[in-house]
Amino acid sequence: MTPLDIYTERLARVRAAMAEQQVDTLLLSVGHDLPYLTGYLAMPLERLTMLVVPRDGDPTLLIPRLEAPRVDEQPGVFELLPWDETDDPTALVAKLAAGSRTLAVGDQMWARFLVELLPQLPGAEYRRAVDVVGPLRMVKDQAEIDALAAAGAAVDRIAGELQSGSIPLVGRTEAEVSADLSARIVAEGHQKVNFAIVAAGENAASPHHHAGPRVIGENEIVLCDFGGTMDGYCSDITRCVVTGDVPADIAEAYAVLHEAQRAAVASATVGTGCQEVDRTARRIIADAGYGEYFVHRTGHGIGLEEHEDPYIVEGNDRPLEAGHAFSVEPGIYVPGQWGMRLEDIVVATAAGPSPMNAADHDLASV
Amino acid sequence: MTPLDIYTERLARVRAAMAEQQVDTLLLSVGHDLPYLTGYLAMPLERLTMLVVPRDGDPTLLIPRLEAPRVDEQPGVFELLPWDETDDPTALVAKLAAGSRTLAVGDQMWARFLVELLPQLPGAEYRRAVDVVGPLRMVKDQAEIDALAAAGAAVDRIAGELQSGSIPLVGRTEAEVSADLSARIVAEGHQKVNFAIVAAGENAASPHHHAGPRVIGENEIVLCDFGGTMDGYCSDITRCVVTGDVPADIAEAYAVLHEAQRAAVASATVGTGCQEVDRTARRIIADAGYGEYFVHRTGHGIGLEEHEDPYIVEGNDRPLEAGHAFSVEPGIYVPGQWGMRLEDIVVATAAGPSPMNAADHDLASV
Repeated sequence: MTPLDIYTERLARVRAAMAEQQVDTLLLSVGHDLPYLTGYLAMPLERLTMLVVPRDGDPTLLIPRLEAPRVDEQPGVFELLPWDETDDPTALVAKLAAGSRTLAVGDQMWARFLVELLPQLPGAEYRRAVDVVGPLRMVKDQAEIDALAAAGAAVDRIAGELQSGSIPLVGRTEAEVSADLSARIVAEGHQKVNFAIVAAGENAASPHHHAGPRVIGENEIVLCDFGGTMDGYCSDITRCVVTGDVPADIAEAYAVLHEAQRAAVASATVGTGCQEVDRTARRIIADAGYGEYFVHRTGHGIGLEEHEDPYIVEGNDRPLEAGHAFSVEPGIYVPGQWGMRLEDIVVATAAGPSPMNAADHDLASV
Repeated sequence: MTPLDIYTERLARVRAAMAEQQVDTLLLSVGHDLPYLTGYLAMPLERLTMLVVPRDGDPTLLIPRLEAPRVDEQPGVFELLPWDETDDPTALVAKLAAGSRTLAVGDQMWARFLVELLPQLPGAEYRRAVDVVGPLRMVKDQAEIDALAAAGAAVDRIAGELQSGSIPLVGRTEAEVSADLSARIVAEGHQKVNFAIVAAGENAASPHHHAGPRVIGENEIVLCDFGGTMDGYCSDITRCVVTGDVPADIAEAYAVLHEAQRAAVASATVGTGCQEVDRTARRIIADAGYGEYFVHRTGHGIGLEEHEDPYIVEGNDRPLEAGHAFSVEPGIYVPGQWGMRLEDIVVATAAGPSPMNAADHDLASV
């Protein structure tokens, strides 16, 4: 299929979902629903870019005039409507959406534009566009799975370098190692670095630690969680290594973490509820006495975005479908002491869970 | 002043503005109002971080539990309220804001959270927080101006390398030069690269061109617009160079652009309306016959964010105040042929406009 065929087919499915959910107008701005439907990613700036999709009739892509040359038009998918610096783009959206009773807006649209829209469409109801576009985006086709696999293989190679000791750690700061990982993410073929968490020792107990000036020492754990975007699709992997001897308490906890992650991946079969995968990991960690130290969900969907549906979390009973792609990343975090996480991306398939990462799962001593 | 003193003082001024504007609750999430008031920048992810500031009473910073270790608490500025993975964070916000009739929300908050909030606070009115916090943020104090000057000097050095020919251009792709500029932005002391537009020949006619695979040739114009964040404050500069001989039509247009930019900077005195600065640049470009090719406003405010108030645009009659910091960046773009832009950051002061950039303004031949 050509890109145009793909966008046309996706738009038809979105319209069907709009009809089913009685959504009159879909509004997509910053975020990845827009490129999923058109190939164009809006700049996250104060000038509004907005795809206005009526349930019937032609979609319009409102765009700042100075950004219009960035867009590849997709005949039959949308018409381009450039607005000038002295125009009021929200008023243009309101005009295009006039008469709509129910609008669905993209999650990451700036709230500013919704605040401006509210008084211009009195009585309208708003919903999340993720309910319309999300179910489509969640189910990856083969080309998307291939892209996830390629991105996964790229970060696997970096993880291998980390585990073999060819990325120096001791004596460098977390920030230096983070910059090193970032450079390797690009060198391995990603167009964009999304994050490169490096957390040493007690800092590893902060799951979203910001790599900083702390110098990495001997005999401590170093948690590295990194990923980027390659040809539109995201990678995301976490591996921990120990600089020197592995302390007994860390070895013991890691064995539990390793087993929890392995079992959770194995449980991620088609038809299993997302929360069941979370429960599988959590049960093993809790049974070993570390329950209070596993402070986050087990995973998140991944695709065009690093975090998207489906979320692997208690309360989400959505059954996994073939083509769902998501992370499985339990962790154990002891405040003030150490932390650890082990993460792979997995795709649910009819033949069972298919990991997109193959880097060694053991706690390497480097 | 200690950071805590600064945050306490800013919060007091925000509360005064809320009282004056009859805003009951201020909601700040992703974006830079939050770090301006607390020092903490929310992660732009699907888990909600939200500072809830009631007009009276203590502010609360709602944060995902796994990100709580990232926050330096500021006693007296806010209380930390971590939420767990199975909590509904929007419901927690609604509870904290219960009884509010008028709420002001940050521009960049994800629309998702406003969509979720709407039915939970029926009858409430929403405004943009920029009307509350923006006027404070717009007026930079000396420490902020010093930070802008340091960031400006850093990108000036890179512009000098570009103009002296020490950054190779011919034979490289735009994307390669963009990566080179990005590396230099970091090497010069920025913590973050915000953008590095490199647009050659006809691509330079696209003001927000995405640097791509086009190889830079001889005797063509190359537009470079780049900047980053250094110690919290942004740089942003545009310079054009020509690889080899400067074609006559480009030389002629550049002389007009240069004069328009110089005159606009000179016009940016305290008390002058923002739109007057835009008009000054636009008049000169229009009088020379290039009016239709200057397709964007003359500038944007800059500070913690690359684009913020005040905008230098027709329709904005706000008078410049001492401490306002903004770009002055007219451009001329001839579709299919070439484009050019010349940009400095300027701070309005009692003694006149003070440029934060000193890189040569001529069109260098490299």
